[in-house]
Amino acid sequence: MSADFQGWARSHQACIETSLQTLLPAANIAPERLHEAMRYAVLGGGKRVRPLLAFAAGELSGASEERVTIVAAAVELIHAYSLVHDDLPCMDNDVLRRGKPTCHVEYDEATALLVGDSLQSLAFQLLAEYRLADTPQIQLEMIMRLAQAAGSRGMAGGQAIDLANVGKTLNLPELEFMHIHKTGALIRSAVMLGARCGSSLNDAQLESLDHFAKHIGLAFQVVDDVLDTEATTATLGKTAGKDAEHNKPTYVSILGASRARELAEELRRDAYQALEGFDATAGRLRQVTDFIIQREF
Amino acid sequence: MSADFQGWARSHQACIETSLQTLLPAANIAPERLHEAMRYAVLGGGKRVRPLLAFAAGELSGASEERVTIVAAAVELIHAYSLVHDDLPCMDNDVLRRGKPTCHVEYDEATALLVGDSLQSLAFQLLAEYRLADTPQIQLEMIMRLAQAAGSRGMAGGQAIDLANVGKTLNLPELEFMHIHKTGALIRSAVMLGARCGSSLNDAQLESLDHFAKHIGLAFQVVDDVLDTEATTATLGKTAGKDAEHNKPTYVSILGASRARELAEELRRDAYQALEGFDATAGRLRQVTDFIIQREF
Repeated sequence: MSADFQGWARSHQACIETSLQTLLPAANIAPERLHEAMRYAVLGGGKRVRPLLAFAAGELSGASEERVTIVAAAVELIHAYSLVHDDLPCMDNDVLRRGKPTCHVEYDEATALLVGDSLQSLAFQLLAEYRLADTPQIQLEMIMRLAQAAGSRGMAGGQAIDLANVGKTLNLPELEFMHIHKTGALIRSAVMLGARCGSSLNDAQLESLDHFAKHIGLAFQVVDDVLDTEATTATLGKTAGKDAEHNKPTYVSILGASRARELAEELRRDAYQALEGFDATAGRLRQVTDFIIQREF
Repeated sequence: MSADFQGWARSHQACIETSLQTLLPAANIAPERLHEAMRYAVLGGGKRVRPLLAFAAGELSGASEERVTIVAAAVELIHAYSLVHDDLPCMDNDVLRRGKPTCHVEYDEATALLVGDSLQSLAFQLLAEYRLADTPQIQLEMIMRLAQAAGSRGMAGGQAIDLANVGKTLNLPELEFMHIHKTGALIRSAVMLGARCGSSLNDAQLESLDHFAKHIGLAFQVVDDVLDTEATTATLGKTAGKDAEHNKPTYVSILGASRARELAEELRRDAYQALEGFDATAGRLRQVTDFIIQREF
Protein backbone atom coordinates (compact mmCIF):
# COMPACT_ATOMS: atom_id res chain seq x y z
CA MET A 1 0.00 0.00 0.00
CA SER A 2 1.21 3.45 -0.90
CA ALA A 3 2.31 5.92 1.76
CA ASP A 4 -0.30 8.26 0.31
CA PHE A 5 -3.09 5.78 1.04
CA GLN A 6 -1.75 4.94 4.48
CA GLY A 7 -1.78 8.61 5.42
CA TRP A 8 -5.29 9.06 4.03
CA ALA A 9 -6.59 5.97 5.83
CA ARG A 10 -4.99 7.00 9.12
CA SER A 11 -6.36 10.52 8.99
CA HIS A 12 -9.87 9.30 8.13
CA GLN A 13 -9.77 6.62 10.80
CA ALA A 14 -8.83 9.37 13.27
CA CYS A 15 -11.62 11.58 11.92
CA ILE A 16 -14.28 8.91 12.38
CA GLU A 17 -12.98 8.13 15.87
CA THR A 18 -13.24 11.78 16.90
CA SER A 19 -16.70 12.08 15.41
CA LEU A 20 -17.96 8.96 17.13
CA GLN A 21 -16.58 10.31 20.41
CA THR A 22 -18.67 13.45 19.94
CA LEU A 23 -21.79 11.80 18.53
CA LEU A 24 -22.09 9.11 21.21
CA PRO A 25 -23.78 10.29 24.42
CA ALA A 26 -21.21 11.28 27.06
CA ALA A 27 -20.55 8.72 29.80
CA ASN A 28 -21.67 11.17 32.50
CA ILE A 29 -25.20 11.52 31.04
CA ALA A 30 -27.84 9.24 32.60
CA PRO A 31 -28.11 6.30 32.23
CA GLU A 32 -24.35 6.47 32.78
CA ARG A 33 -23.52 2.78 32.71
CA LEU A 34 -25.34 2.25 29.42
CA HIS A 35 -23.62 5.21 27.83
CA GLU A 36 -20.25 4.08 29.12
CA ALA A 37 -20.88 0.63 27.64
CA MET A 38 -21.98 2.10 24.29
CA ARG A 39 -18.71 4.04 24.13
CA TYR A 40 -16.75 0.93 25.14
CA ALA A 41 -18.32 -1.05 22.30
CA VAL A 42 -17.72 1.55 19.60
CA LEU A 43 -14.61 3.56 20.39
CA GLY A 44 -10.94 2.75 20.11
CA GLY A 45 -10.92 -0.17 17.81
CA GLY A 46 -11.62 -1.71 14.47
CA LYS A 47 -10.28 -1.09 11.01
CA ARG A 48 -13.21 1.20 10.17
CA VAL A 49 -13.46 -0.42 6.74
CA ARG A 50 -17.05 0.77 6.21
CA PRO A 51 -16.25 4.41 7.03
CA LEU A 52 -13.22 4.27 4.72
CA LEU A 53 -15.45 3.00 1.92
CA ALA A 54 -17.96 5.78 2.61
CA PHE A 55 -15.22 8.43 2.53
CA ALA A 56 -13.77 7.03 -0.71
CA ALA A 57 -17.22 6.93 -2.33
CA GLY A 58 -17.84 10.46 -1.10
CA GLU A 59 -14.67 11.64 -2.85
CA LEU A 60 -16.08 10.15 -6.06
CA SER A 61 -19.32 12.14 -5.82
CA GLY A 62 -17.84 15.41 -4.61
CA ALA A 63 -19.43 15.10 -1.18
CA SER A 64 -18.35 17.29 1.73
CA GLU A 65 -16.39 15.50 4.44
CA GLU A 66 -18.84 16.81 7.07
CA ARG A 67 -21.73 14.96 5.48
CA VAL A 68 -19.80 11.75 4.85
CA THR A 69 -18.52 11.72 8.42
CA ILE A 70 -22.08 11.48 9.79
CA VAL A 71 -23.05 8.79 7.30
CA ALA A 72 -19.86 6.85 8.05
CA ALA A 73 -20.55 7.11 11.77
CA ALA A 74 -24.12 5.85 11.32
CA VAL A 75 -22.97 2.82 9.32
CA GLU A 76 -20.22 2.09 11.84
CA LEU A 77 -22.76 2.26 14.70
CA ILE A 78 -24.90 -0.36 12.95
CA HIS A 79 -21.78 -2.49 12.48
CA ALA A 80 -20.76 -2.06 16.13
CA TYR A 81 -24.26 -2.96 17.36
CA SER A 82 -24.19 -6.14 15.27
CA LEU A 83 -20.86 -7.17 16.79
CA VAL A 84 -22.14 -6.64 20.35
CA HIS A 85 -25.24 -8.75 19.70
CA ASP A 86 -23.32 -11.42 17.72
CA ASP A 87 -20.91 -11.90 20.60
CA LEU A 88 -23.71 -12.59 23.12
CA PRO A 89 -23.89 -16.07 24.66
CA CYS A 90 -27.08 -16.95 22.76
CA MET A 91 -25.28 -16.16 19.48
CA ASP A 92 -21.53 -16.75 19.00
CA ASN A 93 -20.72 -16.58 22.72
CA ASP A 94 -17.42 -14.84 22.18
CA VAL A 95 -15.25 -13.22 24.82
CA LEU A 96 -12.74 -11.25 22.76
CA ARG A 97 -13.37 -8.44 20.28
CA ARG A 98 -10.96 -5.84 18.96
CA GLY A 99 -8.42 -7.09 21.47
CA LYS A 100 -10.66 -6.41 24.48
CA PRO A 101 -13.26 -8.39 26.45
CA THR A 102 -16.59 -8.34 24.59
CA CYS A 103 -19.26 -5.95 25.83
CA HIS A 104 -21.27 -8.53 27.78
CA VAL A 105 -18.09 -9.80 29.45
CA GLU A 106 -16.93 -6.31 30.45
CA TYR A 107 -20.46 -5.25 31.54
CA ASP A 108 -23.26 -7.81 31.56
CA GLU A 109 -25.62 -9.44 29.08
CA ALA A 110 -28.58 -7.16 29.68
CA THR A 111 -26.41 -4.07 29.24
CA ALA A 112 -24.89 -5.49 26.04
CA LEU A 113 -28.37 -6.16 24.69
CA LEU A 114 -29.40 -2.55 25.38
CA VAL A 115 -26.10 -1.23 23.99
CA GLY A 116 -26.84 -2.89 20.65
CA ASP A 117 -30.44 -1.69 20.65
CA SER A 118 -29.39 1.87 21.48
CA LEU A 119 -26.60 1.99 18.91
CA GLN A 120 -29.08 1.03 16.21
CA SER A 121 -31.47 3.83 17.25
CA LEU A 122 -28.61 6.31 17.35
CA ALA A 123 -27.58 5.44 13.79
CA PHE A 124 -31.01 6.37 12.46
CA GLN A 125 -31.18 9.43 14.67
CA LEU A 126 -27.95 10.75 13.11
CA LEU A 127 -29.17 10.14 9.56
CA ALA A 128 -32.32 12.16 10.29
CA GLU A 129 -30.75 14.89 12.41
CA TYR A 130 -28.02 16.32 10.19
CA ARG A 131 -28.24 17.66 6.68
CA LEU A 132 -26.57 14.95 4.63
CA ALA A 133 -27.77 15.27 1.06
CA ASP A 134 -28.85 17.89 -1.45
CA THR A 135 -32.53 17.31 -0.62
CA PRO A 136 -34.41 15.83 2.35
CA GLN A 137 -35.96 13.35 -0.09
CA ILE A 138 -32.54 11.89 -0.94
CA GLN A 139 -31.86 11.69 2.79
CA LEU A 140 -35.07 9.68 3.32
CA GLU A 141 -33.88 7.30 0.61
CA MET A 142 -30.55 6.95 2.43
CA ILE A 143 -32.35 6.09 5.67
CA MET A 144 -34.50 3.53 3.88
CA ARG A 145 -31.42 1.98 2.34
CA LEU A 146 -29.60 1.64 5.65
CA ALA A 147 -32.71 0.26 7.36
CA GLN A 148 -33.10 -2.38 4.65
CA ALA A 149 -29.41 -3.25 4.83
CA ALA A 150 -29.59 -3.69 8.60
CA GLY A 151 -32.87 -5.58 8.84
CA SER A 152 -34.27 -9.04 8.26
CA ARG A 153 -33.59 -8.93 4.53
CA GLY A 154 -30.08 -7.65 5.12
CA MET A 155 -27.59 -8.04 7.94
CA ALA A 156 -29.89 -9.42 10.66
CA GLY A 157 -31.36 -11.85 8.14
CA GLY A 158 -27.83 -12.95 7.24
CA GLN A 159 -27.19 -13.69 10.91
CA ALA A 160 -30.33 -15.81 11.01
CA ILE A 161 -29.18 -17.75 7.94
CA ASP A 162 -25.74 -18.14 9.50
CA LEU A 163 -27.27 -19.64 12.66
CA ALA A 164 -29.45 -21.98 10.65
CA ASN A 165 -26.41 -23.21 8.71
CA VAL A 166 -24.26 -24.28 11.65
CA GLY A 167 -23.13 -27.84 11.05
CA LYS A 168 -24.54 -27.91 7.53
CA THR A 169 -22.69 -28.43 4.28
CA LEU A 170 -23.42 -25.55 1.94
CA ASN A 171 -22.61 -25.13 -1.70
CA LEU A 172 -21.00 -21.95 -2.96
CA PRO A 173 -24.22 -20.17 -4.05
CA GLU A 174 -25.77 -20.86 -0.63
CA LEU A 175 -22.72 -19.49 1.16
CA GLU A 176 -22.75 -16.46 -1.11
CA PHE A 177 -26.45 -15.88 -0.41
CA MET A 178 -25.70 -15.81 3.31
CA HIS A 179 -22.80 -13.38 3.01
CA ILE A 180 -24.58 -11.04 0.60
CA HIS A 181 -26.93 -10.50 3.54
CA LYS A 182 -24.67 -10.86 6.56
CA THR A 183 -21.78 -8.60 5.61
CA GLY A 184 -22.47 -7.52 2.03
CA ALA A 185 -25.60 -5.45 2.62
CA LEU A 186 -24.01 -3.09 5.14
CA ILE A 187 -20.83 -2.69 3.10
CA ARG A 188 -22.92 -1.82 0.06
CA SER A 189 -24.85 0.76 2.02
CA ALA A 190 -21.59 2.32 3.28
CA VAL A 191 -20.52 2.88 -0.32
CA MET A 192 -23.91 4.05 -1.56
CA LEU A 193 -24.65 6.38 1.36
CA GLY A 194 -21.21 7.93 1.07
CA ALA A 195 -21.80 8.55 -2.64
CA ARG A 196 -25.26 10.04 -2.15
CA CYS A 197 -23.86 12.73 0.16
CA GLY A 198 -22.50 14.32 -3.00
CA SER A 199 -24.19 15.25 -6.23
CA SER A 200 -21.88 14.58 -9.14
CA LEU A 201 -22.98 11.02 -10.00
CA ASN A 202 -25.78 10.08 -12.40
CA ASP A 203 -27.99 6.99 -12.08
CA ALA A 204 -25.79 4.85 -14.32
CA GLN A 205 -22.74 5.75 -12.28
CA LEU A 206 -24.55 4.97 -9.03
CA GLU A 207 -25.41 1.59 -10.49
CA SER A 208 -21.78 0.89 -11.39
CA LEU A 209 -20.85 1.87 -7.88
CA ASP A 210 -23.40 -0.55 -6.49
CA HIS A 211 -21.85 -3.34 -8.57
CA PHE A 212 -18.47 -2.39 -7.19
CA ALA A 213 -19.89 -2.50 -3.65
CA LYS A 214 -21.38 -5.95 -4.15
CA HIS A 215 -18.04 -7.40 -5.25
CA ILE A 216 -16.11 -5.70 -2.49
CA GLY A 217 -18.62 -6.94 0.11
CA LEU A 218 -18.05 -10.54 -0.94
CA ALA A 219 -14.30 -10.04 -1.22
CA PHE A 220 -14.26 -8.72 2.34
CA GLN A 221 -15.93 -11.89 3.59
CA VAL A 222 -13.70 -14.26 1.61
CA VAL A 223 -10.61 -12.58 3.08
CA ASP A 224 -12.23 -12.70 6.52
CA ASP A 225 -12.65 -16.45 6.22
CA VAL A 226 -9.05 -16.91 5.11
CA LEU A 227 -7.78 -14.81 8.00
CA ASP A 228 -9.94 -16.71 10.49
CA THR A 229 -8.06 -19.85 9.43
CA GLU A 230 -4.57 -18.46 8.97
CA ALA A 231 -4.09 -15.59 11.39
CA THR A 232 -3.63 -15.69 15.13
CA THR A 233 -5.97 -14.39 17.81
CA ALA A 234 -3.36 -11.80 18.76
CA THR A 235 -3.23 -10.36 15.23
CA LEU A 236 -7.00 -10.45 14.69
CA GLY A 237 -7.97 -9.00 18.06
CA LYS A 238 -10.79 -11.55 18.08
CA THR A 239 -10.83 -15.29 18.56
CA ALA A 240 -9.17 -16.95 15.54
CA GLY A 241 -10.40 -20.26 14.16
CA LYS A 242 -13.85 -19.86 15.60
CA ASP A 243 -15.70 -20.66 12.39
CA ALA A 244 -14.18 -24.13 12.29
CA GLU A 245 -14.71 -24.51 16.03
CA HIS A 246 -18.40 -23.56 15.65
CA ASN A 247 -18.65 -25.88 12.66
CA LYS A 248 -19.63 -23.01 10.37
CA PRO A 249 -19.34 -23.31 6.62
CA THR A 250 -16.82 -20.79 5.19
CA TYR A 251 -15.15 -20.06 1.87
CA VAL A 252 -12.12 -21.92 3.19
CA SER A 253 -14.08 -24.98 4.34
CA ILE A 254 -15.84 -25.17 0.96
CA LEU A 255 -13.04 -24.13 -1.42
CA GLY A 256 -9.84 -24.62 0.53
CA ALA A 257 -7.53 -21.72 1.45
CA SER A 258 -5.72 -21.53 -1.84
CA ARG A 259 -8.86 -21.38 -4.02
CA ALA A 260 -10.42 -18.90 -1.56
CA ARG A 261 -7.43 -16.59 -2.02
CA GLU A 262 -7.87 -16.88 -5.79
CA LEU A 263 -11.55 -16.02 -5.44
CA ALA A 264 -10.63 -12.90 -3.49
CA GLU A 265 -8.37 -11.87 -6.37
CA GLU A 266 -11.15 -12.49 -8.90
CA LEU A 267 -13.51 -10.35 -6.86
CA ARG A 268 -10.89 -7.61 -6.73
CA ARG A 269 -10.72 -7.68 -10.52
CA ASP A 270 -14.53 -7.55 -10.73
CA ALA A 271 -14.57 -4.62 -8.34
CA TYR A 272 -11.93 -2.76 -10.36
CA GLN A 273 -13.89 -3.46 -13.53
CA ALA A 274 -17.05 -1.92 -12.08
CA LEU A 275 -15.07 1.27 -11.56
CA GLU A 276 -13.84 1.47 -15.17
CA GLY A 277 -16.29 4.18 -16.19
CA PHE A 278 -14.87 6.53 -13.58
CA ASP A 279 -11.74 8.61 -13.90
CA ALA A 280 -8.94 9.14 -11.39
CA THR A 281 -11.41 10.17 -8.68
CA ALA A 282 -12.09 6.46 -8.20
CA GLY A 283 -8.46 5.97 -7.20
CA ARG A 284 -9.32 6.03 -3.52
CA LEU A 285 -11.94 3.30 -3.92
CA ARG A 286 -9.33 1.15 -5.71
CA GLN A 287 -6.92 1.72 -2.84
CA VAL A 288 -9.54 0.78 -0.24
CA THR A 289 -10.23 -2.34 -2.31
CA ASP A 290 -6.56 -3.27 -2.14
CA PHE A 291 -6.58 -2.59 1.59
CA ILE A 292 -9.53 -4.95 2.08
CA ILE A 293 -7.91 -7.72 0.04
CA GLN A 294 -4.39 -7.39 1.44
CA ARG A 295 -5.19 -6.74 5.10
CA GLU A 296 -3.74 -9.11 7.64
CA PHE A 297 -6.27 -8.57 10.43
CA MET B 1 -66.79 3.82 27.53
CA SER B 2 -69.20 4.89 24.84
CA ALA B 3 -70.33 2.51 22.13
CA ASP B 4 -69.05 5.09 19.66
CA PHE B 5 -65.52 4.85 21.10
CA GLN B 6 -65.63 1.06 21.29
CA GLY B 7 -66.53 0.87 17.62
CA TRP B 8 -63.81 3.35 16.69
CA ALA B 9 -61.19 1.52 18.76
CA ARG B 10 -62.15 -1.85 17.34
CA SER B 11 -62.05 -0.69 13.76
CA HIS B 12 -58.67 1.02 14.23
CA GLN B 13 -57.22 -2.00 16.04
CA ALA B 14 -58.35 -4.09 13.07
CA CYS B 15 -56.84 -1.55 10.67
CA ILE B 16 -53.43 -1.62 12.36
CA GLU B 17 -53.50 -5.42 12.48
CA THR B 18 -54.18 -5.65 8.75
CA SER B 19 -51.47 -3.11 8.00
CA LEU B 20 -48.89 -4.88 10.14
CA GLN B 21 -49.75 -8.13 8.36
CA THR B 22 -48.96 -6.45 5.05
CA LEU B 23 -45.94 -4.45 6.18
CA LEU B 24 -44.13 -7.34 7.88
CA PRO B 25 -42.17 -9.59 5.52
CA ALA B 26 -44.15 -12.68 4.54
CA ALA B 27 -43.26 -15.89 6.37
CA ASN B 28 -42.33 -17.61 3.11
CA ILE B 29 -39.60 -15.10 2.27
CA ALA B 30 -36.06 -16.10 3.32
CA PRO B 31 -34.98 -16.20 6.08
CA GLU B 32 -38.33 -17.87 6.73
CA ARG B 33 -37.94 -18.74 10.38
CA LEU B 34 -36.91 -15.19 11.29
CA HIS B 35 -39.84 -13.71 9.38
CA GLU B 36 -42.25 -16.18 10.94
CA ALA B 37 -40.94 -15.23 14.39
CA MET B 38 -41.24 -11.50 13.63
CA ARG B 39 -44.88 -12.03 12.68
CA TYR B 40 -45.45 -14.15 15.79
CA ALA B 41 -44.09 -11.37 18.00
CA VAL B 42 -46.13 -8.57 16.44
CA LEU B 43 -49.42 -9.93 15.14
CA GLY B 44 -52.62 -10.98 16.88
CA GLY B 45 -52.25 -9.36 20.23
CA GLY B 46 -51.95 -6.29 22.36
CA LYS B 47 -54.27 -3.40 23.02
CA ARG B 48 -52.53 -1.29 20.39
CA VAL B 49 -52.63 1.70 22.74
CA ARG B 50 -49.87 3.54 20.89
CA PRO B 51 -51.54 3.17 17.47
CA LEU B 52 -54.86 4.35 18.96
CA LEU B 53 -53.10 7.43 20.34
CA ALA B 54 -51.53 8.09 16.94
CA PHE B 55 -54.89 7.77 15.18
CA ALA B 56 -56.59 10.09 17.70
CA ALA B 57 -53.82 12.67 17.37
CA GLY B 58 -54.05 12.34 13.60
CA GLU B 59 -57.76 13.20 13.76
CA LEU B 60 -56.81 16.35 15.64
CA SER B 61 -54.41 17.51 12.92
CA GLY B 62 -56.52 16.51 9.95
CA ALA B 63 -54.11 13.75 8.90
CA SER B 64 -55.04 11.09 6.37
CA GLU B 65 -55.59 7.62 7.79
CA GLU B 66 -53.12 6.18 5.27
CA ARG B 67 -50.29 8.25 6.69
CA VAL B 68 -51.18 7.65 10.33
CA THR B 69 -51.44 3.91 9.73
CA ILE B 70 -47.78 3.72 8.70
CA VAL B 71 -46.66 5.87 11.62
CA ALA B 72 -48.76 3.81 14.03
CA ALA B 73 -47.28 0.61 12.62
CA ALA B 74 -43.73 1.93 13.02
CA VAL B 75 -44.31 2.90 16.66
CA GLU B 76 -45.96 -0.46 17.37
CA LEU B 77 -42.98 -2.30 15.80
CA ILE B 78 -40.64 -0.46 18.18
CA HIS B 79 -42.93 -1.39 21.07
CA ALA B 80 -43.08 -5.03 19.96
CA TYR B 81 -39.29 -5.23 19.60
CA SER B 82 -38.86 -3.88 23.13
CA LEU B 83 -41.20 -6.55 24.52
CA VAL B 84 -39.30 -9.34 22.75
CA HIS B 85 -35.96 -8.14 24.12
CA ASP B 86 -37.37 -7.39 27.61
CA ASP B 87 -38.68 -10.92 27.89
CA LEU B 88 -35.26 -12.49 27.17
CA PRO B 89 -33.61 -14.51 29.96
CA CYS B 90 -30.91 -11.87 30.50
CA MET B 91 -33.62 -9.24 31.09
CA ASP B 92 -36.99 -10.10 32.70
CA ASN B 93 -36.83 -13.78 31.73
CA ASP B 94 -40.55 -14.02 31.10
CA VAL B 95 -42.38 -16.89 29.42
CA LEU B 96 -45.81 -15.39 28.76
CA ARG B 97 -46.78 -12.39 26.64
CA ARG B 98 -50.15 -11.47 25.18
CA GLY B 99 -51.44 -14.86 26.33
CA LYS B 100 -48.83 -16.78 24.32
CA PRO B 101 -45.33 -18.15 24.99
CA THR B 102 -42.78 -15.36 24.61
CA CYS B 103 -40.77 -15.25 21.38
CA HIS B 104 -37.62 -16.88 22.77
CA VAL B 105 -39.71 -19.68 24.31
CA GLU B 106 -41.62 -20.33 21.09
CA TYR B 107 -38.49 -20.05 18.93
CA ASP B 108 -35.09 -19.63 20.61
CA GLU B 109 -33.04 -16.87 22.19
CA ALA B 110 -30.91 -16.10 19.16
CA THR B 111 -33.98 -15.81 16.95
CA ALA B 112 -35.72 -13.57 19.49
CA LEU B 113 -32.66 -11.33 19.60
CA LEU B 114 -32.69 -11.00 15.80
CA VAL B 115 -36.47 -10.51 15.76
CA GLY B 116 -36.13 -7.46 18.01
CA ASP B 117 -33.21 -6.11 16.00
CA SER B 118 -35.09 -6.57 12.71
CA LEU B 119 -38.32 -5.04 13.98
CA GLN B 120 -36.43 -1.93 14.98
CA SER B 121 -34.87 -1.64 11.50
CA LEU B 122 -38.25 -2.18 9.88
CA ALA B 123 -39.81 0.65 11.89
CA PHE B 124 -37.30 3.15 10.52
CA GLN B 125 -37.57 1.69 7.04
CA LEU B 126 -41.32 2.35 7.02
CA LEU B 127 -40.92 5.93 8.23
CA ALA B 128 -38.48 6.61 5.38
CA GLU B 129 -40.26 4.62 2.66
CA TYR B 130 -43.78 6.10 2.59
CA ARG B 131 -44.88 9.68 2.21
CA LEU B 132 -46.07 10.57 5.70
CA ALA B 133 -45.97 14.33 6.04
CA ASP B 134 -46.44 17.47 4.01
CA THR B 135 -42.68 17.78 3.41
CA PRO B 136 -39.74 15.33 3.52
CA GLN B 137 -38.15 17.65 6.09
CA ILE B 138 -41.02 17.09 8.55
CA GLN B 139 -40.65 13.37 7.91
CA LEU B 140 -36.95 13.53 8.82
CA GLU B 141 -37.96 15.25 12.06
CA MET B 142 -40.43 12.44 12.75
CA ILE B 143 -37.69 9.84 12.24
CA MET B 144 -35.37 11.74 14.56
CA ARG B 145 -38.08 11.93 17.19
CA LEU B 146 -38.80 8.19 17.06
CA ALA B 147 -35.09 7.34 17.13
CA GLN B 148 -34.56 9.51 20.21
CA ALA B 149 -37.63 8.03 21.89
CA ALA B 150 -36.38 4.49 21.25
CA GLY B 151 -32.72 4.98 22.14
CA SER B 152 -30.48 5.33 25.16
CA ARG B 153 -32.07 8.61 26.21
CA GLY B 154 -35.55 7.18 25.75
CA MET B 155 -36.99 3.68 25.97
CA ALA B 156 -33.77 1.63 25.96
CA GLY B 157 -32.30 4.02 28.54
CA GLY B 158 -35.39 3.54 30.69
CA GLN B 159 -34.81 -0.21 30.56
CA ALA B 160 -31.25 0.31 31.72
CA ILE B 161 -32.45 2.46 34.63
CA ASP B 162 -35.09 -0.16 35.44
CA LEU B 163 -32.42 -2.89 35.61
CA ALA B 164 -30.18 -0.75 37.77
CA ASN B 165 -33.07 -0.12 40.20
CA VAL B 166 -33.96 -3.74 40.95
CA GLY B 167 -34.02 -4.17 44.71
CA LYS B 168 -33.58 -0.44 45.36
CA THR B 169 -35.93 1.89 47.18
CA LEU B 170 -36.75 4.81 44.92
CA ASN B 171 -38.54 8.04 45.71
CA LEU B 172 -41.35 9.26 43.48
CA PRO B 173 -39.24 11.62 41.30
CA GLU B 174 -36.74 8.82 40.66
CA LEU B 175 -39.52 6.42 39.68
CA GLU B 176 -41.01 9.08 37.43
CA PHE B 177 -37.62 9.70 35.80
CA MET B 178 -37.42 6.01 34.93
CA HIS B 179 -40.91 5.82 33.47
CA ILE B 180 -40.62 9.04 31.48
CA HIS B 181 -37.92 7.13 29.61
CA LYS B 182 -39.11 3.55 29.70
CA THR B 183 -42.72 3.93 28.57
CA GLY B 184 -43.33 7.67 28.35
CA ALA B 185 -40.97 8.48 25.49
CA LEU B 186 -42.54 6.06 23.01
CA ILE B 187 -46.09 7.02 23.97
CA ARG B 188 -45.21 10.66 23.45
CA SER B 189 -43.77 9.91 20.06
CA ALA B 190 -46.94 7.99 19.08
CA VAL B 191 -49.00 11.11 19.77
CA MET B 192 -46.58 13.55 18.16
CA LEU B 193 -45.91 11.48 15.04
CA GLY B 194 -49.64 10.95 14.53
CA ALA B 195 -50.21 14.69 14.79
CA ARG B 196 -47.40 15.59 12.41
CA CYS B 197 -48.93 13.48 9.64
CA GLY B 198 -51.50 16.29 9.36
CA SER B 199 -51.04 19.99 8.90
CA SER B 200 -53.68 21.86 10.88
CA LEU B 201 -51.75 22.36 14.14
CA ASN B 202 -49.52 25.31 14.96
CA ASP B 203 -46.44 25.16 17.18
CA ALA B 204 -48.33 26.16 20.34
CA GLN B 205 -50.89 23.45 19.72
CA LEU B 206 -48.16 20.87 19.13
CA GLU B 207 -46.66 21.90 22.45
CA SER B 208 -49.99 21.47 24.25
CA LEU B 209 -50.27 18.07 22.64
CA ASP B 210 -46.82 17.16 23.88
CA HIS B 211 -47.88 18.09 27.42
CA PHE B 212 -50.92 15.90 27.01
CA ALA B 213 -48.73 13.05 25.82
CA LYS B 214 -46.38 13.36 28.80
CA HIS B 215 -49.25 13.06 31.28
CA ILE B 216 -50.85 10.18 29.44
CA GLY B 217 -47.53 8.35 29.29
CA LEU B 218 -47.16 8.48 33.05
CA ALA B 219 -50.83 7.65 33.62
CA PHE B 220 -50.39 4.57 31.45
CA GLN B 221 -47.54 3.35 33.66
CA VAL B 222 -49.33 4.07 36.94
CA VAL B 223 -52.32 2.02 35.77
CA ASP B 224 -49.93 -0.70 34.56
CA ASP B 225 -48.43 -0.94 38.02
CA VAL B 226 -51.87 -1.13 39.65
CA LEU B 227 -52.97 -3.85 37.24
CA ASP B 228 -49.77 -5.82 37.81
CA THR B 229 -50.76 -5.99 41.49
CA GLU B 230 -54.50 -6.43 41.20
CA ALA B 231 -55.25 -8.32 38.00
CA THR B 232 -54.68 -11.98 37.22
CA THR B 233 -52.29 -13.50 34.72
CA ALA B 234 -55.27 -14.75 32.70
CA THR B 235 -56.73 -11.24 32.34
CA LEU B 236 -53.40 -9.56 31.63
CA GLY B 237 -52.11 -12.15 29.15
CA LYS B 238 -48.72 -11.72 30.81
CA THR B 239 -47.35 -12.81 34.16
CA ALA B 240 -49.12 -10.82 36.91
CA GLY B 241 -47.30 -9.74 40.05
CA LYS B 242 -43.91 -9.93 38.43
CA ASP B 243 -42.78 -6.47 39.56
CA ALA B 244 -43.07 -7.49 43.20
CA GLU B 245 -41.52 -10.86 42.45
CA HIS B 246 -38.56 -9.18 40.73
CA ASN B 247 -38.35 -6.72 43.61
CA LYS B 248 -38.90 -3.79 41.29
CA PRO B 249 -40.03 -0.41 42.63
CA THR B 250 -43.48 0.56 41.29
CA TYR B 251 -46.09 3.24 41.92
CA VAL B 252 -47.94 0.72 44.06
CA SER B 253 -44.89 -0.27 46.11
CA ILE B 254 -44.06 3.39 46.75
CA LEU B 255 -47.54 4.91 47.10
CA GLY B 256 -49.83 2.00 47.85
CA ALA B 257 -52.62 0.94 45.47
CA SER B 258 -55.18 3.48 46.63
CA ARG B 259 -52.89 6.51 46.28
CA ALA B 260 -51.64 5.15 42.94
CA ARG B 261 -55.24 5.07 41.66
CA GLU B 262 -55.67 8.68 42.80
CA LEU B 263 -52.49 9.65 40.99
CA ALA B 264 -53.84 8.10 37.79
CA GLU B 265 -56.97 10.26 38.16
CA GLU B 266 -54.85 13.37 38.71
CA LEU B 267 -52.86 12.60 35.60
CA ARG B 268 -56.09 12.14 33.66
CA ARG B 269 -57.17 15.62 34.77
CA ASP B 270 -53.78 17.04 33.75
CA ALA B 271 -54.08 15.34 30.36
CA TYR B 272 -57.59 16.73 29.85
CA GLN B 273 -56.37 20.17 30.85
CA ALA B 274 -53.60 20.10 28.25
CA LEU B 275 -56.30 19.56 25.60
CA GLU B 276 -58.38 22.56 26.70
CA GLY B 277 -57.26 24.78 23.84
CA PHE B 278 -58.66 22.31 21.31
CA ASP B 279 -62.25 21.98 20.25
CA ALA B 280 -64.37 18.88 19.79
CA THR B 281 -61.75 17.33 17.48
CA ALA B 282 -59.83 16.41 20.65
CA GLY B 283 -62.75 14.25 21.74
CA ARG B 284 -61.04 11.12 20.49
CA LEU B 285 -57.89 11.82 22.49
CA ARG B 286 -60.04 12.27 25.63
CA GLN B 287 -61.71 8.94 24.92
CA VAL B 288 -58.36 7.17 24.45
CA THR B 289 -57.26 8.78 27.74
CA ASP B 290 -60.29 7.28 29.49
CA PHE B 291 -59.55 3.92 27.84
CA ILE B 292 -55.98 3.99 29.18
CA ILE B 293 -57.10 4.89 32.72
CA GLN B 294 -60.08 2.53 32.91
CA ARG B 295 -58.64 -0.51 31.15
CA GLU B 296 -58.57 -3.75 33.04
CA PHE B 297 -55.73 -5.46 31.18
